[in-house]
Amino acid sequence: MCMPNVQFKNLDASAAFGKLREHRTPRKLKELLTADRIEKCEVDATGGLRYNYAAKQVDDEVLDLLQDLADEQQVIDKYKMVANGKVMNTGERRMVLHHLVRGQVDGSVVNEGRNLREFYQEQQGRVNKFAAKIHSGEIRGSTGQLFDTVVQVGIGGSDLGPRALYLALQNFQGRETNGSTRRPRLQAYFISNVDPDDAAEVLSRINLESTLFILVSKSGTTLETLTNEAFVVDSIKKSGIPGLQPKKHIVCVTSETSPLARPGEYLDAFYIDDFIGGRYSGSSAVGGTVLTLAFGKEYFTQFLEGAHQADIASLEPDIRRNASLLDAMIGIYERNILGYPYTAVLPYSQALSRFPAHLQQLDMESNGKRVNREAKPINYSTGPVVFGEPGTNGQHSFYQLLHQGTDIVPLQFIGFHESQLGVDLSFDGSTSQAKLNANLAAQIVAFAHGSENSDPNKTFPGERPSSLLYGRKLTPGALGALLAHFENKVMFQGFVWNINSFDQEGVQLGKTLTKQVLGSGEITPELAALAGKLSITR
Amino acid sequence: MCMPNVQFKNLDASAAFGKLREHRTPRKLKELLTADRIEKCEVDATGGLRYNYAAKQVDDEVLDLLQDLADEQQVIDKYKMVANGKVMNTGERRMVLHHLVRGQVDGSVVNEGRNLREFYQEQQGRVNKFAAKIHSGEIRGSTGQLFDTVVQVGIGGSDLGPRALYLALQNFQGRETNGSTRRPRLQAYFISNVDPDDAAEVLSRINLESTLFILVSKSGTTLETLTNEAFVVDSIKKSGIPGLQPKKHIVCVTSETSPLARPGEYLDAFYIDDFIGGRYSGSSAVGGTVLTLAFGKEYFTQFLEGAHQADIASLEPDIRRNASLLDAMIGIYERNILGYPYTAVLPYSQALSRFPAHLQQLDMESNGKRVNREAKPINYSTGPVVFGEPGTNGQHSFYQLLHQGTDIVPLQFIGFHESQLGVDLSFDGSTSQAKLNANLAAQIVAFAHGSENSDPNKTFPGERPSSLLYGRKLTPGALGALLAHFENKVMFQGFVWNINSFDQEGVQLGKTLTKQVLGSGEITPELAALAGKLSITR
Repeated sequence: MCMPNVQFKNLDASAAFGKLREHRTPRKLKELLTADRIEKCEVDATGGLRYNYAAKQVDDEVLDLLQDLADEQQVIDKYKMVANGKVMNTGERRMVLHHLVRGQVDGSVVNEGRNLREFYQEQQGRVNKFAAKIHSGEIRGSTGQLFDTVVQVGIGGSDLGPRALYLALQNFQGRETNGSTRRPRLQAYFISNVDPDDAAEVLSRINLESTLFILVSKSGTTLETLTNEAFVVDSIKKSGIPGLQPKKHIVCVTSETSPLARPGEYLDAFYIDDFIGGRYSGSSAVGGTVLTLAFGKEYFTQFLEGAHQADIASLEPDIRRNASLLDAMIGIYERNILGYPYTAVLPYSQALSRFPAHLQQLDMESNGKRVNREAKPINYSTGPVVFGEPGTNGQHSFYQLLHQGTDIVPLQFIGFHESQLGVDLSFDGSTSQAKLNANLAAQIVAFAHGSENSDPNKTFPGERPSSLLYGRKLTPGALGALLAHFENKVMFQGFVWNINSFDQEGVQLGKTLTKQVLGSGEITPELAALAGKLSITR
Repeated sequence: MCMPNVQFKNLDASAAFGKLREHRTPRKLKELLTADRIEKCEVDATGGLRYNYAAKQVDDEVLDLLQDLADEQQVIDKYKMVANGKVMNTGERRMVLHHLVRGQVDGSVVNEGRNLREFYQEQQGRVNKFAAKIHSGEIRGSTGQLFDTVVQVGIGGSDLGPRALYLALQNFQGRETNGSTRRPRLQAYFISNVDPDDAAEVLSRINLESTLFILVSKSGTTLETLTNEAFVVDSIKKSGIPGLQPKKHIVCVTSETSPLARPGEYLDAFYIDDFIGGRYSGSSAVGGTVLTLAFGKEYFTQFLEGAHQADIASLEPDIRRNASLLDAMIGIYERNILGYPYTAVLPYSQALSRFPAHLQQLDMESNGKRVNREAKPINYSTGPVVFGEPGTNGQHSFYQLLHQGTDIVPLQFIGFHESQLGVDLSFDGSTSQAKLNANLAAQIVAFAHGSENSDPNKTFPGERPSSLLYGRKLTPGALGALLAHFENKVMFQGFVWNINSFDQEGVQLGKTLTKQVLGSGEITPELAALAGKLSITR
């Protein structure tokens, strides 16, 4: 299974980590963050993005040791193993192929005689053709109306990633990629929660006759999603609209072996496979179907190209020339040497309003693990808690604690030179975009340098590390690169920790106990007591 | 200034805290969480809500010590000082009167000859009359259209709280409080970020002729909000609609001394004062204006009554009979004895989708402090990082780390017997609401008890503490009680930590440096370098 000479060992078995441990007291940011360093400490992150780490507590000595650690843990070799279709999801014994969906990073991957790059391309090709027919009106609703709305029904990775990406590109609705206007594509909504108010609220807003539903579940057995499918179908039936046929308004995105893989029963079905994990599925048909329907294939193609560029750049072994790897290694230093238990993601871009929620899943579900890839317990910290909201909003909310709380939260800023819509106004001597970015620049310096004051309540201790990912504009390509940057960062950290970042056994117990509560068999007295409190009729 | 016999001392100067420190190893939840305890460990939280702490790592011995600590820190006496208008915001030398906005908790509060309860009531009365005229069509847009849309322009406390409350009640749009339907009131949108894409996106969705804007800034000088006002006014002017007059479409919520307090220049102005902190202003005209316009005065009145009930119940000194105080004290135990640096808020209610973001501000901005109320540095941890997303969505996202990560995150669940809309469907033997609550019950047991497995990757260590706030239905009254519960919890924790929970000096440095970047004066080389990176023209 392994390539020659690739070894898997725990972080605390690594010699480089032993040396790093002598660096528990980081360099002072008050001295470290200089204009010179701001110019120098920067890496191309592709897609027009750059990763600046001037305000991180790492000097050349620490970076050299982080390079040693990355080398010792053979993170690039392991990435190539992922790219070449080795079984890197050890628990579930699966390949991990979300990179392949956007392009071939290294060798070709063949499974049971099928070239999987071709398979993924074929599926996206089918999505593109389908979307073109929806846009042209060749395929219409069952009562003859043009589809103008799409509702994604899915949860977890079938929801958070696609939703964050949709919101990130929503400002391009009704525009060609060259900026000229055109008829808007489909408006998208999302139903995810099993809370009946979620589906009911979305259904109350839309016109069923002109709405296409995308049912997304790889296994085809996700209880929340099947429940919401039933909810949608029931709602269509109860609408009393003559001629309205539920199944003519639903397409599925699922695996070929799933119970939902019945294209004849639905309007159509597009396929993924077991090698695309839920939280990594934004680039596959899970994200591709809704995004192509919403914006057109040009946008999604550019997004995939942006992500693929970042994937290629992530092959670079030199941490000072590989943005996602460097970000990963600095994160390891912050988590395992400096002991920070969280990271905040702070995009200065309203379009990225739900991107932190997606990164929260991506990171915490991938690396919130307490056993290594061979299922042996480990004795060091793994994935941190990830949270965030867009700036400047967060500044008026939780930044108080970030600046003056008793603990240090490492920060990851994101920013762009230009807004997406380009609609702006000069007020009080500056545009809104300039104000937005002036706030971002000010925060980085304020967090690092702090400020003295004779009143301790007005003193800022500083020494709060941050990095900055920035680019010209949040285009589809930049968004792809941004997503791949974080996916690869998380993957690299998993290699350093020697964990399996691609399974999620931690979700199983809740499912099992839920079934017990909903079933008619005997349950523990504690479950019964809580079911009583929550008024669940058994 | 102080009431007789009330003393302020740091947490680590308290005798009870010294005794608590012997309890660093908590009781095992595997033994502690029993059906009996689930029945017993519960407190009325008013508004039909109950606070269940059966799955928290506290036994009677710890609770007795927490009671001693609450008594020693005189938290109820200090709450009464707040209620009676003592200057409890020590840094800014202000009273703290958000309780008074919803009802008189203890004595009356008079400032410069004015009874402030009467002042707040008078303002809400003015809002109610104004809203009635908008709803009836007596007041219309400047081109004669009925107002059907309201856009709140504000940031931080003027945005997060009102937005979370609006979303929480949105399902009641177009309904009388008795459930019967009627013509919907105004649909609400929010503009907060200085990112020009935020305002531009909202403005692209609405009909300017039928839209009323609420400009919210206590000081009347908030840069983001004034910028967005200019954006809105510019957009109205550029619309080219004959007769459309910007100022006839804007009302202000501000203090009487603010530059926005010019009712003649706007359609109207409603007043708050310096004693209502931004993050505590949801109950004042800051939340009241938009919520009354959106839902009608009956809803907001019920909301205020629910909050006031919870405020009265919070006067109880016995921690076992005061839900917000008990929640606060258990939080102190988790933060300062067990050392957990975060708390997750997990509402099993889609309507509460943005409630965690509001609590994040409420808690982190109030208690993210490193000096005590007399501005002396302290040597113990204060406010934790707060984050959360609605269940069941979170289960398919970051719960992996909560169950199987290397660190323990204390959890606060929220749930309701009934959905808000009451639209539901039985699928696979149960309704969606039953599924939602079965998941909630299952998670509490899974987190506490865990589960053994011969495969360590499928082992759940358990010992993850959680509490549950639950009620029949998320009504306006329950929402008020829920909000007040958390506000009072945060206040009580601030008393125990001996900090000022009511100022936010940590936001100042960023503002100062932003002005420097935007100004024409000399700036530090670091700010200049970052301004260059971010393409800010100076």
